[in-house]
This record gives sequence, C-alpha cells and structure tokens, in this order.
Amino acid sequence: MSRITIIGLGLIGGSLGLAIKAAGHKDVELVGYDYSGRVRREAKKRGAVDDVEGNVAKAVDGAGLVIVAVPPVQIIDVFKEVGPHLSEGAAVTDVASSKRLVLQWADEFLPRYCSFVGGHPMAGKTDQGIENAEAGLFKGAPYAVVPTTDASETAVRSVLGMVETIGATARFMAADEHDDLVGAVSHMPILASNALFTMLRGTESWADFGKMAGPAYRDLTRLVDGDPQMSAEIALTNKERIQYWLDRYILELNRYRDLLDEDEETIFNAFFDANLQRFRFLQGDDLDDVPPVPEMPDKGAVIGGLMLSPKLYDKMREMMKHSDETIERSRRRR
Amino acid sequence: MSRITIIGLGLIGGSLGLAIKAAGHKDVELVGYDYSGRVRREAKKRGAVDDVEGNVAKAVDGAGLVIVAVPPVQIIDVFKEVGPHLSEGAAVTDVASSKRLVLQWADEFLPRYCSFVGGHPMAGKTDQGIENAEAGLFKGAPYAVVPTTDASETAVRSVLGMVETIGATARFMAADEHDDLVGAVSHMPILASNALFTMLRGTESWADFGKMAGPAYRDLTRLVDGDPQMSAEIALTNKERIQYWLDRYILELNRYRDLLDEDEETIFNAFFDANLQRFRFLQGDDLDDVPPVPEMPDKGAVIGGLMLSPKLYDKMREMMKHSDETIERSRRRR
Repeated sequence: MSRITIIGLGLIGGSLGLAIKAAGHKDVELVGYDYSGRVRREAKKRGAVDDVEGNVAKAVDGAGLVIVAVPPVQIIDVFKEVGPHLSEGAAVTDVASSKRLVLQWADEFLPRYCSFVGGHPMAGKTDQGIENAEAGLFKGAPYAVVPTTDASETAVRSVLGMVETIGATARFMAADEHDDLVGAVSHMPILASNALFTMLRGTESWADFGKMAGPAYRDLTRLVDGDPQMSAEIALTNKERIQYWLDRYILELNRYRDLLDEDEETIFNAFFDANLQRFRFLQGDDLDDVPPVPEMPDKGAVIGGLMLSPKLYDKMREMMKHSDETIERSRRRR
Repeated sequence: MSRITIIGLGLIGGSLGLAIKAAGHKDVELVGYDYSGRVRREAKKRGAVDDVEGNVAKAVDGAGLVIVAVPPVQIIDVFKEVGPHLSEGAAVTDVASSKRLVLQWADEFLPRYCSFVGGHPMAGKTDQGIENAEAGLFKGAPYAVVPTTDASETAVRSVLGMVETIGATARFMAADEHDDLVGAVSHMPILASNALFTMLRGTESWADFGKMAGPAYRDLTRLVDGDPQMSAEIALTNKERIQYWLDRYILELNRYRDLLDEDEETIFNAFFDANLQRFRFLQGDDLDDVPPVPEMPDKGAVIGGLMLSPKLYDKMREMMKHSDETIERSRRRR
C-alpha cells in the first residue's frame, strides 16, 4: 500500500484526486488536505480522495508522493510547513503555472532527503473550486514535468506515473524553457485579452462599443473572466518572460500596422499564409520537427502504486537534453 | 406584390433570403442573383429566394428594395452595372463591414432617383457560402443602418423594416461612427488575433509552442480562421480606423507591461476591476448610459411588403442626432 497526498483540494487538486481514483489502482491510498473544512468534506463526499486530514503534517506522513496544488504564492508556506514531516525519499510535485521560482523555493525550503519534480498541467477552466472538479480534466492535455537537477530517478518516475495515470501527455522540460513557453502561449495572452477589453471599457463611448461587440470581441476578451487572483500570481511569478513576449507581440502588431500600407496582394497573401498555417496547426500536422512525445510502449514497473512504462525515464532524459539544446539555440537566435 | 432583390447569395445574402422568407410575408416576391449558376441553383433549392435570375439587370427590374450582399471590392462594379436598371425610388442597401467608402461609391455610381441606405449585420460565422446560410443568423444581432444624407424616408423605412423582419436590432449611425466602432470591436481584433498567431508561428521553436498551446491560445487566435479575402478587404476599406485602434491597443499593452513592475496589490486590483467590469458587460447592465435601442411598439405600416413600426423612423432620426453628438464629443476627447 502506498500513500499519495494532495495538498489543496480546489479545481486542480480535486480533479487530480478524481482522475487518480478513476484509474482504480487498489494499492494506492489517496489522502487530501485543505485548510478549509468545508472543502475537505466536499472532496471526501465527491470521492476525490479516500481520506481527508485537517493536519498537514499528518497528511504527508508516510506519503511517497506529495502533490502541492495550492495557489503559487502559498507554495513557500506549504514547503516550510510540510518539509520537516516528509518521508525520506518522498517525491514532491506542484501544479503552478510558473516553474523557475517554485524550483528555487523547493531548493531552499525542502529537505535534501526528498526530491522535487515540478509539474504543470496545461488544463483548467474558468469555474474554480472542488465543486467543478472532474476526473477527465487532464485527458490528452500536455503536462509539463520539470525535475530539479538532483531529483532521484524514483521521484521522477513517480510523477511521470501520475501524469500517465490521469491521461495527460508528459512533456519534459527545464524550468526556464517552461516559463518561456507558457509565458508566450498562456500568460501573455491573459494580458492581451485584458488590454483589448480595458482599452474600450475605459472610453466614454464604451456603451456604443459594447452594444456593437459581436462574438469576435467577446471571445478575444474572455480571459478577463479568469480568477483575478490567479492572473495576478501568474504576472508576479513569470514577470520577465511575460514582458518579453508583450514586447514581441507589440512588434508584431506594428508589423501588421505597416502591412496595411502595402498593396492589396501583399495584404491578402499575409492573411492567406496565416490562415493556411493555422489550418495545418489545427490539423496537427504542423508540429513534426521535434521528437514525438514518448509512446510508453510496455507498461510494467509499479512505482508508488502507479503503472509506469519502464523506459519512459530514459526517453525523458533524452528529451530533456534536447530541450537544453533548444533553449541554447533559441538564446543565440534572440 | 412588391419585389426584393438580393444580389450575391453567399452566407449573408442566402441567410437574409431565408430569414425574410421565414417571416412569411405573402405579398413579397424575393428574387436572387449570383454570378455563379451553381450558387443560384443551390439558393433556389434551399428556399432562400422565390426565384433566381442570371441577368443582374433583369433581377433588379421593378424591385423596391435591392440588397447588395457581395464582397466589398465587388460593390463598385455591382453599383455601375445595376444603376441604370433600378426603378425610380428604389432603396438600395449593402452588408459590407465598412461604410464610409461604400457610401462614397453609392454617391458616385447610383442614380439620383434611388436612395442608398447602408447596412451592416453584426453576425456571421467562419464557414461561408450558401451551404451554411441559416434563417436565424441575425436573431438578436446588432444591425448598423447608415443612410446617406439624402436618402428618402421611404427607403430608410424599407431597410429598417427588413432589419426588423429578420429579427436583428437596428442601430442607426453615421458612416464615420460605424467605421470607428467596428474598427475597434471587429476589424482590429482580426489583426490582433493574426499577430498573436504569426508571432509564434514564425519562430524556430514553433513546434514547442504549438504543443504547449491550450484553449486560451487557440481561442484568441481563432480569427485567423476567417476568410483571408474578407480580412484583406476589411483591411483595405477601413485602414485608417484599424491603424488608429492598433495604436491604441499597443498603448494599452504597454500600460500592462508597466503594470507588471507595480506591487502585488496594484496588479491584483487591475485584474479584479477588469473582471468585475466584464462580468457587468456580460450581464448586460453596463451599457445603460446611451438611449436604448428602439422598442418598436406598434407594428403597423406596410412598406415594401414588410411590417414596420410607424414611429421607428422618427426614433432613429433622434438617435442619429445623438450619434453625431457622440462623435463630436469623442473627437474632442482624442
């Protein structure tokens, strides 16, 4: 019997619990902690965990895998609090959307006899909380796995096994690469969406704009609906990369501004090329020039009570090497 | 029996036909023209028109209302071609997404004994063509009505009657105001969406970005899926206002860039305020400081075979006056 502990039972923590339970591994005991008694009771009622524990030290006692699913700014406190109570060799992971700072905090506040392997499921929805948790939330979603350099092989395998169990696709990468990638595809777009909304909302003629706004404007500004606390924490924990991508976006917008001064054919070709490229992107046949995600062919080794392909770790290490080269190339280019 | 002619039987022209037919006015004869025989046959088969005509001069013969639903750059040619064959007093309208240029073309190429009343339904979808036409496309959508200064009251009433018939909400405005409003909520967002896509698609690491891209990036770049020809024509016919709003958007993005250098509370408050304002916008209780859209209380007068509230024209004229004041205020402010 091995124990997995989830700290923080909101949308992500609760959904992780439901997804792990849905896999039906009989030798896994799933323990949940949340500072709110109401949330603990709700998580238990919904079957997101086997047991709940109101004391965080007791919750992590004997756990082989500890999943920290609290908001980013609470992670330091959780690390400090659980650190002394973690079992020797335990794997600790998180779900925060920025990784560089979290790995620094782990290095500083977690004991040496544990391994931190950062995680970030690229899944979620606007409605937060245990009430909206669902087992299928991570199905097919990319799941960034960001180990510290001194993480044990067992710990990395344990987190990869969890990712495999919930149906997500593990993508191995370094912290800086992760923060750069999500800075571009996830964090900066939050600000772009907010800016498109406040640009008009701040004008005196807002009522006229609002009444003429169709689905295009409504869809492009929908990230404003996200939890403002989460948006603020993302901004605080990945500021530098977000500012970098905002600058890049502004350069690209200026390029389109200049494009409008060109002739009809040039303008048409620009929209046509983008349209074709996005069609290929949506078809999924535009992303073939990097190593494919691991295929996980023979499921065998049981780690932390979860099934994991034995060769996955080696494949991941190889991908990680590739990632480092990508970052290097990308740095030289900029 | 009065005749309405639709020139151009694509998504919008076809849907207008279906929506007018669905209203079931027995004394209206709906004639359709399209240069493509295949499209004409398909429109007839789907019941979007009562009859089709392969000769554009014959198609407009005797029509009290002519709806030009061709792409913007073809409008001049249609005006030149149908001009000599229009009946005295006929109302001519269009569906183009820019209005200033179309009103200039109408002034130049349509005969004096007709009235041009520009129109722009704020509705549509990604999939174009008669195959995707539907009667309900305009239900509840804003429909900009932009008369020339010398348009006859009968002609304006005729277009307003059509808008009412298809279930859209008429919004009376001047050409410059229209182009400014849609430049902000509809046209500039097309470029913003394209720029967010090409910014990353153009990098060497595109495959990595694409694989990490979740629903946020996919949704915000979805306007790239629009017909590139239509995007190009929008850019060509409303260039100045789009460039103005691109500049404003870039300023706002820079404001967010600077915001990230502020403290946690300031950042949170910015996201929180926007979130609250958008909630009010989506609830519809944020747009009350302008005159409400006309209520159309007593449907009575029959114009061009369509039912129209008799007092609507007067209300519209009043709104138009308000619109002029809004533009003036807005000009002074900038």
